[in-house]
Amino acid sequence: MKFNPLLEGITIYEAGKPIELVVREYGIAANDVVKLASNENPFGTSQAVVDAIKDVAHLMYRYPDDSSYELKEKLAHHYGVESRNIIIGSGSDQVIEFCVRAKVSKGDKVLMAGTTFAMYEIYSHHVGATVLRTTSREHNLDEFRAIYQENPDIAIIFLCLPNNPLGECLGRDKVYNFLAEISPETLVVVDGAYQEYAAYKDPSKKIEPADLIARFPNAIYLGTFSKAYGLGGMRVGYGIATREVIEPLYKLRPPFNITTLSLRAAIVALDDQEFVAMSVAHNFREMSRYEAFAHAHGWRTIESYTNFITMLIDGRSSKKLAEALMKRGVIVRDLTSYGLNALRITIGTSEQNDRFFEVMNELVK
Amino acid sequence: MKFNPLLEGITIYEAGKPIELVVREYGIAANDVVKLASNENPFGTSQAVVDAIKDVAHLMYRYPDDSSYELKEKLAHHYGVESRNIIIGSGSDQVIEFCVRAKVSKGDKVLMAGTTFAMYEIYSHHVGATVLRTTSREHNLDEFRAIYQENPDIAIIFLCLPNNPLGECLGRDKVYNFLAEISPETLVVVDGAYQEYAAYKDPSKKIEPADLIARFPNAIYLGTFSKAYGLGGMRVGYGIATREVIEPLYKLRPPFNITTLSLRAAIVALDDQEFVAMSVAHNFREMSRYEAFAHAHGWRTIESYTNFITMLIDGRSSKKLAEALMKRGVIVRDLTSYGLNALRITIGTSEQNDRFFEVMNELVK
Repeated sequence: MKFNPLLEGITIYEAGKPIELVVREYGIAANDVVKLASNENPFGTSQAVVDAIKDVAHLMYRYPDDSSYELKEKLAHHYGVESRNIIIGSGSDQVIEFCVRAKVSKGDKVLMAGTTFAMYEIYSHHVGATVLRTTSREHNLDEFRAIYQENPDIAIIFLCLPNNPLGECLGRDKVYNFLAEISPETLVVVDGAYQEYAAYKDPSKKIEPADLIARFPNAIYLGTFSKAYGLGGMRVGYGIATREVIEPLYKLRPPFNITTLSLRAAIVALDDQEFVAMSVAHNFREMSRYEAFAHAHGWRTIESYTNFITMLIDGRSSKKLAEALMKRGVIVRDLTSYGLNALRITIGTSEQNDRFFEVMNELVK
Repeated sequence: MKFNPLLEGITIYEAGKPIELVVREYGIAANDVVKLASNENPFGTSQAVVDAIKDVAHLMYRYPDDSSYELKEKLAHHYGVESRNIIIGSGSDQVIEFCVRAKVSKGDKVLMAGTTFAMYEIYSHHVGATVLRTTSREHNLDEFRAIYQENPDIAIIFLCLPNNPLGECLGRDKVYNFLAEISPETLVVVDGAYQEYAAYKDPSKKIEPADLIARFPNAIYLGTFSKAYGLGGMRVGYGIATREVIEPLYKLRPPFNITTLSLRAAIVALDDQEFVAMSVAHNFREMSRYEAFAHAHGWRTIESYTNFITMLIDGRSSKKLAEALMKRGVIVRDLTSYGLNALRITIGTSEQNDRFFEVMNELVK
């Protein structure tokens, strides 16, 4: 059977290996596995959210409120925007997909950093877009500018602030200066999946969606409940933009795109800011241990504004190192598929990090 | 800002009104609202599933096993197919979307019944397809044949067995005879969202996915946990097809397309066949009350093989009737937007149905 020729160029996203797989493949007990591969919140989910979900678990038979009324009202209040400026996605991933499909047709161009979130490219390939990247792996706005000047018809520019899987983050002022040079016809996706972390470490990196979209009506801010809010498994993200940008996205939103329990979880999670603050503060205390460890081994790290750290491994294969770690029950993300001899390691709890250093010390001694 | 011109023709799916909306708009206490609008299982979710979800609620922070290994193994066993013949979707809706995007390009044709599940057309419009429909509202294979013979280049034929929102169901033998005439280049989507109901009422309507795809490698069977399994809010559906058909769909599947709790819920739900059997048997006992009610008022019903019944209202507006019901806390689905003066009513628990008849009797006396 013939299929859409656009499918030929599509690669399938490689997800971080789940604990179940390591248990199956290596015969390690689930409790002994430490997963530092998917940037999940190591403190799990806020107890308030867990309790709330137990209370409504019997409502799984019921379709969610497809308008996400309460969640949008809460997000609107949290960010100082209007409810009608918000769209909810099954993870911010899905909002990325809406943006690409709403704005990009076959042959159109999109622009992104040399190494950035894989789904920008994958969704762009779904629609047959031409993907332009900077030569620099990290976001380099001078290169973005140069490419944009040569290709003023670019449909979407992706800015991942901070950047996954590298961890670096552009400052707000630089971003705003750049956006001021971009045509109102180009959609700029500001992916803030890790903004809670960046804003804590350095307030000059913080992007306020209300401010962003008031200044730049062609920008959309993306946020997620998957990281600081501890709901990676519940698939809730959102986009915030002017009505002009949000409305076309609604045309592509499938009905009931998040689950009844996800909706409840996000609503309750947004109220537990204490949990978020605790998670973020702990993250950076523990991150300094990783920096010290890497530097002691002569490895560079990229200054990180997220809940993970990218270690540029020198003198041995990051792929083999990741495999050796996995056989010992420690899952990290090898970045070989991004063309980097590096490991991306999620900052865990103090105990998980202890375990990582213990196993790593055995492997690299 | 300019967007993809394909968006211009897209209408947004109108979901059944959630209880929360009726509470907000009409000031009716949530406990007094009876929702018979979205074909949810009136018995809710199996207790075994509710218990299982409470046990794993603390794992919401963790991304799901993106391979859905255990669920696919269980489904494979349940249906006598191989795990690699299965793809999991966020509801079977999402598998419909994968099929359309994998197979249909702008200007291609798709064929469906005169009145059938709205998402077939909506997803087809997303890619700029031309939608062909039979003149008959219900599935009429002679008309499908005639249109197909005139348009042998049709990319997808949708068969909704049984049909939502009308309730009728073609027999297996007739479907197989029809499929034997279809080119191997045309994808046939056999949507079995309500098959558990049809198979119980009349085994000659039952379609076995293993049998279907062995005979017709160009067919895909869709199933869901949203109806008989009582998990409408958890968004888990699946497609079963040959590898030739399944593989292209995987290229369009976003990572983590169902939630961690949804995955667990579906796995446990599949084991509780007693709950399914009880739900289905009760459904048809209660459905006869609706038939009697309609006929007593001189209204036709469509013979239904699902968990809802379509009542063709005569002598008054179905829209006004649905609104009057809603103001009294009874939510049903008006089919005016499908061009029918009819109500689609989900068969509820005995008590919910009592309430429906009570309010209806007040309104139409």
